[in-house]
Formats: sequence, C-alpha cells, structure tokens
Amino acid sequence: MIPVAIIGASGYTGLELVKMVAQHPTFDLVYAATSEGETTIQALHPSLEKVVSMPVEKADAQSVADVAKIAFLALPHKTAMGFAAKLLDLGVKVVDLSADYRLRLETYEAHYCPHEDKAHLHEAVYGLPEFYREKIEKARLVANPGCYPTASLLGLLPFIPAMKRGTPIFIDAKSGVSGAGKKLSETTHYVTINENIFAYNPIKHRHAPEIAEKIYDRFEREAQVNFVPHLMPVTRGMLCSIYMQLEKEIDPLEVLQEWYNDEPFVRVRQTPVDIKSVAGTNFCDIFATANGTSLFISSAIDNLLRGASSQALVNANIMSGLEETLGIPKFAYVP
Amino acid sequence: MIPVAIIGASGYTGLELVKMVAQHPTFDLVYAATSEGETTIQALHPSLEKVVSMPVEKADAQSVADVAKIAFLALPHKTAMGFAAKLLDLGVKVVDLSADYRLRLETYEAHYCPHEDKAHLHEAVYGLPEFYREKIEKARLVANPGCYPTASLLGLLPFIPAMKRGTPIFIDAKSGVSGAGKKLSETTHYVTINENIFAYNPIKHRHAPEIAEKIYDRFEREAQVNFVPHLMPVTRGMLCSIYMQLEKEIDPLEVLQEWYNDEPFVRVRQTPVDIKSVAGTNFCDIFATANGTSLFISSAIDNLLRGASSQALVNANIMSGLEETLGIPKFAYVP
Amino acid sequence: MIPVAIIGASGYTGLELVKMVAQHPTFDLVYAATSEGETTIQALHPSLEKVVSMPVEKADAQSVADVAKIAFLALPHKTAMGFAAKLLDLGVKVVDLSADYRLRLETYEAHYCPHEDKAHLHEAVYGLPEFYREKIEKARLVANPGCYPTASLLGLLPFIPAMKRGTPIFIDAKSGVSGAGKKLSETTHYVTINENIFAYNPIKHRHAPEIAEKIYDRFEREAQVNFVPHLMPVTRGMLCSIYMQLEKEIDPLEVLQEWYNDEPFVRVRQTPVDIKSVAGTNFCDIFATANGTSLFISSAIDNLLRGASSQALVNANIMSGLEETLGIPKFAYVP
Amino acid sequence: MIPVAIIGASGYTGLELVKMVAQHPTFDLVYAATSEGETTIQALHPSLEKVVSMPVEKADAQSVADVAKIAFLALPHKTAMGFAAKLLDLGVKVVDLSADYRLRLETYEAHYCPHEDKAHLHEAVYGLPEFYREKIEKARLVANPGCYPTASLLGLLPFIPAMKRGTPIFIDAKSGVSGAGKKLSETTHYVTINENIFAYNPIKHRHAPEIAEKIYDRFEREAQVNFVPHLMPVTRGMLCSIYMQLEKEIDPLEVLQEWYNDEPFVRVRQTPVDIKSVAGTNFCDIFATANGTSLFISSAIDNLLRGASSQALVNANIMSGLEETLGIPKFAYVP
Repeated sequence: MIPVAIIGASGYTGLELVKMVAQHPTFDLVYAATSEGETTIQALHPSLEKVVSMPVEKADAQSVADVAKIAFLALPHKTAMGFAAKLLDLGVKVVDLSADYRLRLETYEAHYCPHEDKAHLHEAVYGLPEFYREKIEKARLVANPGCYPTASLLGLLPFIPAMKRGTPIFIDAKSGVSGAGKKLSETTHYVTINENIFAYNPIKHRHAPEIAEKIYDRFEREAQVNFVPHLMPVTRGMLCSIYMQLEKEIDPLEVLQEWYNDEPFVRVRQTPVDIKSVAGTNFCDIFATANGTSLFISSAIDNLLRGASSQALVNANIMSGLEETLGIPKFAYVP
Repeated sequence: MIPVAIIGASGYTGLELVKMVAQHPTFDLVYAATSEGETTIQALHPSLEKVVSMPVEKADAQSVADVAKIAFLALPHKTAMGFAAKLLDLGVKVVDLSADYRLRLETYEAHYCPHEDKAHLHEAVYGLPEFYREKIEKARLVANPGCYPTASLLGLLPFIPAMKRGTPIFIDAKSGVSGAGKKLSETTHYVTINENIFAYNPIKHRHAPEIAEKIYDRFEREAQVNFVPHLMPVTRGMLCSIYMQLEKEIDPLEVLQEWYNDEPFVRVRQTPVDIKSVAGTNFCDIFATANGTSLFISSAIDNLLRGASSQALVNANIMSGLEETLGIPKFAYVP
Repeated sequence: MIPVAIIGASGYTGLELVKMVAQHPTFDLVYAATSEGETTIQALHPSLEKVVSMPVEKADAQSVADVAKIAFLALPHKTAMGFAAKLLDLGVKVVDLSADYRLRLETYEAHYCPHEDKAHLHEAVYGLPEFYREKIEKARLVANPGCYPTASLLGLLPFIPAMKRGTPIFIDAKSGVSGAGKKLSETTHYVTINENIFAYNPIKHRHAPEIAEKIYDRFEREAQVNFVPHLMPVTRGMLCSIYMQLEKEIDPLEVLQEWYNDEPFVRVRQTPVDIKSVAGTNFCDIFATANGTSLFISSAIDNLLRGASSQALVNANIMSGLEETLGIPKFAYVP
Repeated sequence: MIPVAIIGASGYTGLELVKMVAQHPTFDLVYAATSEGETTIQALHPSLEKVVSMPVEKADAQSVADVAKIAFLALPHKTAMGFAAKLLDLGVKVVDLSADYRLRLETYEAHYCPHEDKAHLHEAVYGLPEFYREKIEKARLVANPGCYPTASLLGLLPFIPAMKRGTPIFIDAKSGVSGAGKKLSETTHYVTINENIFAYNPIKHRHAPEIAEKIYDRFEREAQVNFVPHLMPVTRGMLCSIYMQLEKEIDPLEVLQEWYNDEPFVRVRQTPVDIKSVAGTNFCDIFATANGTSLFISSAIDNLLRGASSQALVNANIMSGLEETLGIPKFAYVP
C-alpha cells in the first residue's frame, strides 16, 4: 500500500478524491486536510457517514511528509505552490490540481500572479496522460490540467497537424455548475442558472493561452485559440464543441481512431457525444465530422473527474508505477 | 377588430398563438382548428380553463375563409402548403410557421420534399421583420422563420459586410426541448436530456442552407455556413454562439447598435446575453466581441415566441397595417 | 388613473409587481424605491431594458405620499411595519407583502419580533380575497398572505366544517427556489438543490400558527396544523399536498365546487393539479379526493404571483373599487 | 466465483444490475438477456463501451440454468412469474424485481392480474433485508420490493408499535422520473415534468395495499395506508414524507437509532434527509420529528438502487451466504 494525502478536502474535487482513494486497491488515504482542520471527513461531507471516517487536519507540510508518499493538492492557485514547494523539498510527490504549475513562467505571470516557486516550475509535467505519459512516469510534480483544457486538448490535438495555417480555432465550451465550485455567487444561485444558459468571459478567458501553449508544446504550431465558456443548468459534465479549418479534406473519425484506439480512457464515438455517458467516469468521449475543410469536434468529460480528480488519480498511478487504470471510475452515472 | 384563425392549435406554437391573440387589442380569435377537431381549446390546453373558451374545429379552408381575414398555420411542413394554397385562393392572408415557403424552390426540394404550391411560392415574403419589413407590409403570404434561423440571422447579418471572404461561419446553437415539439421520442424523454447536453445532426442540419440563402439574398455574399444544433435541459429558450472571421478589426457593439438601435425587438447588450431575459418575449438580445479579426456573436431568443409564434404575430401586425408592437409580449418570465 | 408606488423593487416580488403594474390599465406606476435607491428599474432588472424605464429612489415615505395613493411594500418583515405606519398616517393605502400585519399580536410576537406598529395592526385585513373580500374593500391596510398560507388555506378552508374534531392536519408543501429570495445561501446554490429535494424546518415552521389562526378566524375551529415545507428543483411554483380526517364521508370535489365555482381565480380540477398550469398566473388550482374519511387535497399556485405579487395587485384592485380581475395575469407560462 | 444471470438487461434497473455485478468481487456475470436478444450489452448501453463487453441473448430459462446459479429478473410483472417458475424448477435461485411475488395471493390478484405461479408464491420471501434477513438467507425466491414500499416501510415500520390505533398513515412520496422507466409517455416528456410537480393515482395507488400488508405481516397491526405518489423533475432519487399519529409522545430519533444503529445501509440523520446524499448508493437515510403525538418521518433512497437493483444485489449476497455489503455501492453521486 502507498500512503497518500489529500490537501483541500472540503471542496467538490477534494470530495471526489476522497471517494476514489478510499476505494483504490493500492493507495491508502492516511491524511486529509483543509485550511482550517479540526473536523472529520464525514462531518464535511455527510454523504460519507457510515462510509469513510477520518479526522481532517489543519494542513501542514511536515505532517504530510511524516506519513504520505504522494499528496494531492486541491487548493486555490497561489496557495498551492506555497504548499507544493515544501512537500517536494520534504520528498513527497505532488499532483497539483491548481493552475500553478501548468504554464510557462511568462504565461502564468501574465494571467495569474507572480510565481512563487520558480525552483520547481521547470520540472513540473503537464498531467494529460495521453500526451505526456512518459514524462509523468518520471515526474515528482504533476500539474493536473483543468476541465476546460482537458476536454479541449483531447478533442483538438489530433487535428493540429491537419489544421490550416493561419486560421483560428473556436472552442465553444459548456460547463456544469459544479465547475464554479462551492463558493456562493449570483451566478451559482439556482434561480440564475436554472432554465438559462449564457457565455462568460468570452474570448478573454485565461484557458485560451494554456491551450495554445500546449498545442505549441506538442506540435510546434502557433494557434490562435478563441475560447468561449458557457454555464449551463447541469451539475456536472462538460461539452466542448470545437470548430477549426483544415488544410485539406480528411476522415476525422479515422484520425481520432489512430490516436486513441488503444487509449483506455478515450472513446471515439460514431455519433455526437453527450455528457451523461461520461459523468461519473474518467472517460473523454470524442466525435468529429467535417463539412469540406470545416471541422467540428465534440468532446465530453465529467468536469470534476476527468477534468480534475480522476485524472489526478491516473497521474498518481503512473507516477507510482501502477497500472494506469487502477481504481479509476469507468461506470457512468447513467441513467 | 380583425378576425383571425389559428390552424394547428394543439401544439406548443399553437398554444402560444392562442394566448397572444386572445390578449391582442385588435385581432379577434374567431376560429381554431386541428387536424381532428371536435374538442375545445380549454380541453386541449387545461391551463386555459377559466381563461379562453372556444370550440376547436376540424381544419377546413372554406370555414376559415367564411370568418377570418388572416390565418396562422402552425402545421407540419407539406401539410401547411396544401392548406395555405387554398386559403390564399379564398382571399385569406396567411402567416405560415412551417418551412414550406421559406426557401427558394431548389433549396426547398433538396432538403424537404417536392413543392406542391409553386404558384404561391414566388410571392412569399420571409418574415424576419428587421430585414424584410417593407415587403411584409405588402405580403399576402409570409413565411415565418424558425427559431434557429431567426436567432442566427439576427446575430450574424449585421456582420456580413465585414466578413472575410472565403472564411466559414460556425453557428453553435443551443435549444430548449420545447423546440422538438410535443412528439414523444427517446430524445425528449426527461431522463435522456436532464443533466445532459449533446449536438445532433451536426453540420448536415437543413437550417444551414436557409441561413446561407438569406445571407445571399440580403448581401449577395456567398457564405459557408456550418450549423451545429445542441439540445439542452431547458424547456424554452435558444442561445446561438456564432464564430466568424472579419476582414479587419471593428467595434462589434457599434456595428450592432447602428443596425438595431431603433428596433423595438432587438436589444444590443454590453455583456453576454442569456435566455432568461428573453423567455416569454419577442426580444432577440445580442452581444458581440472580437479577438483581433475573430468575432464571437451571442444571440438569445425564446424559441417558441421570437422563434415562432410572437414573430408570426408581429408579421400579422405589419401585414394588417397595425403598429408592429401591438399586443406583442415584452415582459420576460424572469425570475 | 390611480398613482401607485412600489417599495422594495429589487427582489423577485418587486420585479413581478413592476411588470404587472406597468401593464395595468388603471394603475400608474409613479414611484419605485429600494433601500438604497440611485439606480433605474432597467439597471436593477436588465430584462426590462426597452420595456420599462424609470428611476429607483431611496425609499422615503413623504415622497411616496406626495405622488401615490396606494403603495405596495415588498420589504423584509420589521422594516415593513416601520414604513407602513408612516404611509398610513400620510393617507396612503398600503398592501404589505411582509408578515408584519398578518397575525394577531401575540402570535406575531411569539414567532417574529416585538411589534412596532400596534396602532395599525388592529385594522389590517388579511388579503385572501376569496375569504376576506368584503373587508378588503374597506381596508386601508391589507396584509398580503405569503405563498405557503395562501396555497394551504385555499385548499383546506372549504373542508374545515367537515373535519373530524381533534385530528391533526398535515400539510406537505413543495416550493420552488424563488421562494427563498435572491439572497445567496448554501441552500440556494444550484449544486445543492439541483437533482435534489428535502424538507426544512419541519413542523416548527412559523407558517403553521398563521394557518391555524386563520382557520379559527373563519370557522372558530381549533386546528392542529403540522406544516412541513420542502425545497424542490424548480424556479417558481408551489404544490401543497394536504392530508386530514373527515367526520364522515363526503364528495370532496362537490365541496370545492360549491365554494369556488364563481371565483375568478380558483379552478377546481377533476385530476391532480400541477404547478405548470398556474405558473405565471394568479390562479390557485385545487383537486381533492378521499379514501373513506381520509382526505387528500392538492393545491397549486405560482409562489411569486398568487403567493405574493399578483394577489397583492388583486387586493389593490378591490381596495380601489376596481374590477377584481383587472390587469391580473391568467395566461400560464405553459409550456 | 458464483455465476449469475440478468434477465431484462435493457431497462434502467437492468443497466444498474449489469454495472454492479460487473464490479462485484464474487459474482460473475455469465448471461444477459432481453426479450429480443441478438445484441450486445455495450450496444444497448453505449456508456458501457470500453467497460463491459458481452452478448445479450434472447431470454431462455434452460440457457440460464446451464450457466448460472442465481438470476435477477428485471422484467414486467406477469412476464416475470412465467420465467421465474421455470428457473426455480431448473434449480436456479431467483431475485425477482417485479411485483409478482411481493403480495399475498388475494392482494396480488385484486390489484394486478390472476397469478400464474401459485406453486412458488408461498415460498417467496419479501426482500427487505432489515426486516426479513433470516428468511432471505434460506430463500430460493426473493421478491424484491419496489422503490415506494422500500422507502415507505423503512421509514414507518419502526413506529408501528407506537402508532395510535385507528388513525390513518399518510405517505407523501416524491419520485424521480427514472422510476417511470424508459417507456415514452406524455408524463415522461421533458417539457411535461421539467419545472413541474404533480401527484398521480393519489390514494388509489396499488402500493398502498403492499405497504399495509407488510405492516400487518411484521406487527399484526391493521393500518389504513393513504399513499400519494408525486412525480418531480429529478432523474433519480425518492423522498417519502410520512405523517402519522402516535399513542403518546416519544423521541423519534431514539426509536430509529434503536432499530437501525447496526444496520449497514440505513442512516439515521439528525436533520431532514435529502436524495443527493443517497443517489448512487444502497443507503436509506431517515429522519423523524414529532409535534406532540403527530409524527413526521422523512426517508430518502435512490429509486433505482435501494429501490430496485442494489437491494436485489444485497438479497443475492444474503442468499449466497456472502457478506451482505459485498460489492454494494456506498459512495453517493454528490455533488
């Protein structure tokens, strides 16, 4: 058994981590913490009553290092890097679910804040297993991608080699409300979002540069990424509808199958994907079709799992030399 | 008072017509029919009990002509043109909510079926008041646009002069389930669509040629329209997110304001639009923003009202020489 | 035209009042206020853009009295009575939507706070038109019932004469989330209530004594009222399922019809009622059936309209000597 | 490993069985069938692609007996008893999810149809483990209770000894739409139930006699059960609000704790229960509070799991001499 810690156990992604680690055959949840501590996991999450019972500590790096080999950080950005730096120096491997290690320094500082752990930033590996598996195997620090880049990149990366140079990519993303977290706001008030849908931060959203950076990182292609997120009346799930132009006509499903046929957590679909079939799982379902050289790609994930917690667990599996699929949810919440 | 008839009173758009005509200061609802008749409007729609009471006849053109000056046809395509032809020959003006008179002959026959009323097709006017107002004033036969083309065209037409030649338009449309009508299908089963979202008929949808045709009709510009409709867990409302490329940088809100400032039923918004603010009304709310020469347009309508019944009533107002806004709903269902 | 004022225009019930008064044929909205003022009605409620345009003042009693004959108070309890007292002394009639004048002094102070306007409390009339119409006609001050007592009392009052003495009444009420108001709370977070339902404040809820008091007031019968409200994933609408025991077997629908056949805003239904058929209207739909001497009553209203704003407007109509139904919404939001 | 069969694999409860049996450490899914066969499980349920792959046969009793020791029947009533009879005669243990073996002969025939397997009816055990565990251990045939009786009985049985004689029980049940199955009907159309709630078959529902029979069976108390089911806009989950009268005042939570403290799948809650905390699990959460001798009980289950498939699996565990909790879901879908 490999002892693991979850830092930031009170939010939605923290809860999902607790649920999966508690059922994992090799990981042993030995430490859970929040910024305040002094509670129990079943008090924080009443659905865990009679299921998981353990104390929740006030987060402390040395205490983590005393008992755990790997730590999941489900913390806000900025807080995460302060904590990660200490853990790494104490010999604990880190899967960070925040934005702190996902970007190159200049991109990060342009869109977030000054970086406070430049020492470790260079060794962080982007935790999208389908495209960074080998690097993740050797990593001490994995920057787990968020839901928007995960669904977007898995959908569009296979088509970058065929993309027409100089043309923009348009990503129309639709997210369930759990993506906005537990925080109270007018936007997450039931009456605001029920029977409603709307775009927010269109085009200016900071996931656009992250997506563009990873496209370049993988294919050395500059891409103009136009990202428009929408909030929709659904608790969990994310659908990305991606539009781009191709150099010449191709068979989009064939391209997807070549990239993903052997992948355990990507399913290439013959018809447009939906979020119900992936909710509760680590799957990314993808469909694509073209109108001449105009391409439409549709990708679906569970925003809290493939877009956060289960992908983090896959990364921990890989970092630990375990089977990638070990303890990872595959059964959707359907119906 | 002007006597009017509603043919096809059992569906959602028929019900909306009944509700609005019953409250209209000048139109007098003298005849309502379905394909079967022998019922009453309050039996078909129990919410009308103690509100509207009238018999529902088996649809018959001569009976309409005996009592009404204008008829609304809320019938399936193909059925509609058979009925419209008779009404026109009997001197009744027609607002047809089906697809039968919306398209040029060749476009119609390529996407629907052989046309059975070529005699009147040439005189039909496309009922998008903001762009065809003068023609509607003189029309005997108005082809009322459906929800997808209405929301799409109102959003994108102002930008066609600035569109970069040879680049595609991408329309990512999200529709509430009432757009699929009352018919039972796996798609409209609550369990299928609740907590879900998915594209259907992507790119191949037959509204794409309708949109392209109207773009050409108004601006003599060939446009490659890629239309992807999505079904979302909402009863009524439609959001169209439109992506296109511009010849050069422009101020998108300024363009919209120039076109729409004096329009009574289009609101140019400074922030992304939502469907709640238009549900229950004839408004189309529009927002746009650009990233260099990449343009994002967001338009919202009530699919059953501006996308069908209230737009039909506006057309009837114009055809009758009445004030365009007379009896047209402006108060949204918010909250 | 009768000039009216709306104090508390920023909440859901304030918005509904603005929408209805703006369309009312005899009332003229001359004054709208919030506790802060310095805005406009269309800025507070963007759905009113191009529909209603007027300044929103900082609430001031003298300013109201200068221009208006009737004032609607959509304020929190306690705040309301302070304001109402001043308005009444300045000669303005008041429809108060808060709890401040609904109860006898001792009941009020046991469940809310010390009463600060005992001077006017004795003259307040309970604004349930079907049972207090004659008193409302002569009232200067009407205490508008809330949504729970309205739906409960309209359902159960007709059966009080037949109720078995000494047996309890059970009211299982289900409310849409708009009933909780605009305030942010964990309960109104979308993720909390979507795909969920739960009781809150069961049995201890302070609407129970209000219902019991009105039963006594009307029939001089002591009733043990057990009231259990539930929150359900719906924006607007309320369903009350009421269970009670009868002295002997009766025909429940006949009882309802005798009481309500001539009422313009109560519909006795032959099948169980739903909230869709009343949402957007002032109707209360009621159904009842019995199993021997066990009675089940089902009543449905729009919580924001019949449960607040449209009932307030009916009361204002009656207080002003107008036709009770004038300008009151009857067309449901169906579908 | 114990080989098991699932007959009726195309519906919602069939799917849930497949998902759980596929993950069960001791049961081995060797046979899946529908009435038509000739397909695969992943074709019937696309969410199982890359997860479970197996053929789906045309249901045949001998084929089941050739390979399986236990069979789950997820079939309509009437069809089920025909199939169960054959399986039992061939030596296969049966967990029947239909109504066919739940009731005494006379009760069944009064509410369903003539019984066609009287030979086995007498040996059927009612599969509510908390109250029939010892009999289930020895049973060859378990009649799995449906969702309404499960949630109702678990809530009210502990209070039957304290119930006031001669007083009625009122059960106000609220069900998610998945309880109505996959069948298309006006009731399950998204537009009918979204933003809506309504009672159906009030008081006359055939689950009332089932509940009354089990009360008598366990406590020899005649009870007048008034059962009113409601359909609400939620996919899965059921909440039963139960109202009854007590002989004298008691501490309801203490009563519940005495009955259920050692039960692995019942949680006594200190605050009103919700369905989110049980969705995805076999838990029944229960809360109760009293107003003098008026009692309110609130119980919540996942209608497809504790109300059907996971309870069936618990029964199969017990019938097979396995640990009752083996492979039974405990982690809720929260958030």
